[in-house]
Amino acid sequence: MKKEVAIYTISDSIGETSQKLIGAVMVQYPEVSFDNTYRFPFVTDEQELMDILKDAEKDNAIVISTLVNRKLAQAAQNFSVQANLAYYDLMQPFFSMIEAKTSAQPIEKPGIVHKLDTEYFHRISAIEFAVKYDDGKNPQGFLTADMVILGVSRTSKTPLSMYLANRGHKIANLPLIPEVPLPQVLEKVDPKRIVGLICRPEKLVKIRSNRLESLGLGQTTSYTDLEKIRRELAYAQSVFKTYQANIIDVTDKSIEETAYLVEEQLKSLTVGL
Amino acid sequence: MKKEVAIYTISDSIGETSQKLIGAVMVQYPEVSFDNTYRFPFVTDEQELMDILKDAEKDNAIVISTLVNRKLAQAAQNFSVQANLAYYDLMQPFFSMIEAKTSAQPIEKPGIVHKLDTEYFHRISAIEFAVKYDDGKNPQGFLTADMVILGVSRTSKTPLSMYLANRGHKIANLPLIPEVPLPQVLEKVDPKRIVGLICRPEKLVKIRSNRLESLGLGQTTSYTDLEKIRRELAYAQSVFKTYQANIIDVTDKSIEETAYLVEEQLKSLTVGL
Repeated sequence: MKKEVAIYTISDSIGETSQKLIGAVMVQYPEVSFDNTYRFPFVTDEQELMDILKDAEKDNAIVISTLVNRKLAQAAQNFSVQANLAYYDLMQPFFSMIEAKTSAQPIEKPGIVHKLDTEYFHRISAIEFAVKYDDGKNPQGFLTADMVILGVSRTSKTPLSMYLANRGHKIANLPLIPEVPLPQVLEKVDPKRIVGLICRPEKLVKIRSNRLESLGLGQTTSYTDLEKIRRELAYAQSVFKTYQANIIDVTDKSIEETAYLVEEQLKSLTVGL
Repeated sequence: MKKEVAIYTISDSIGETSQKLIGAVMVQYPEVSFDNTYRFPFVTDEQELMDILKDAEKDNAIVISTLVNRKLAQAAQNFSVQANLAYYDLMQPFFSMIEAKTSAQPIEKPGIVHKLDTEYFHRISAIEFAVKYDDGKNPQGFLTADMVILGVSRTSKTPLSMYLANRGHKIANLPLIPEVPLPQVLEKVDPKRIVGLICRPEKLVKIRSNRLESLGLGQTTSYTDLEKIRRELAYAQSVFKTYQANIIDVTDKSIEETAYLVEEQLKSLTVGL
């Protein structure tokens, strides 16, 4: 039988930080079931908080808290000590460290405040940019993009673009197809703003086969042919060389990891200004 | 002068959890500068780790760690105690709690492993779906979408769709324009799969003005006219009523908060199955 652990997350906002941490922890325990994970967002009332903690006690759960309200966090801490509850506060110890360094106090205002600030508008327009200039739809976007992503089919150009867009970067992408001529405008793009995605051919075969399967199509097509894919990738490499693109091998990388490398490239551009 | 605090994040992967936590903490200290935040990803070597910690000591920095490797985490912990460094380990205390509950051990394998699993493909295809069926481009997508999002211009339909897509949901969205007839296929969509976005008219005026400004256009247009916007929103409300859409007011919500509410609606659909 699979081992089980119940986890409660408590936040006065939506609890994204806890979710992220749990995701990172879960992959470390492939043999443990985390099915009993309960998320309690927008907790701002002490009675409600106590009811959740009592349920957690009954469930023998680990409680992760990102409460920014000190009074609530303290109440939860007190309850947990008394009830011998596994209580893990992500926020308050960090606050204490900042207080020790700066003597500053947190504003204790829950939530990602939805501010109509520059950053917010920037992010929204980056997402719209990425949708507009996805898949080589309009190569003129290359000239105003922070980064232009090139790659053969199924090298994760679109998900990567959208992930980066969500982080505020203006991304355009172009599929590389040996039979289709490249848009002329690519020549005008600063090579430092071009990323070329590459992938091990065997992996691409698997990804493309899976893709066809999900579309309900058969497997015997040149799209998944290893030799054909090798030729496509060789073509891609020659394009990357011509345009001096920075090459990223996505074979064993998650979208997040590839995005991190693209952001590093973007950062070096800013430093160079 | 603004108070300052230096933060170092150390991870054997990309350190997304730390970034998320720092983001949540930063908004609690509007008067503190977090400009000296340094991210050290892919740390897997003890010597490298020690060099980073020594720099952190010199910078009087707070160190946030998400190292999954116990040996490295222990070394960092030991150094910090000796050097009196503000060291905050997000991962190991959680591991200890899980061990106490289940006696399971973490695999200590760094990183979001890029698995070619169902979830990964699901997420990729959700993102492609959202791009394909954004902005009412092809209303036939409504029939296979997990959720159809309706709203007048600038109610954050596209960013919301992309955010939800990144979390694996198939989202289509449709702009509501009083002068444009609704696609017939909307009648075939389960009302539980329709979300209507609403916003305070005054706020929409601001958002749209900002939008026009960013496009380098003047401000005197019916697009930003309060009375016109009120009529648009009244029309949207009548559409939501006709199609029994679940209404979300996005006025003071971040994309993440609105997304959370949509996910709750999606969850209630699964429960109902």
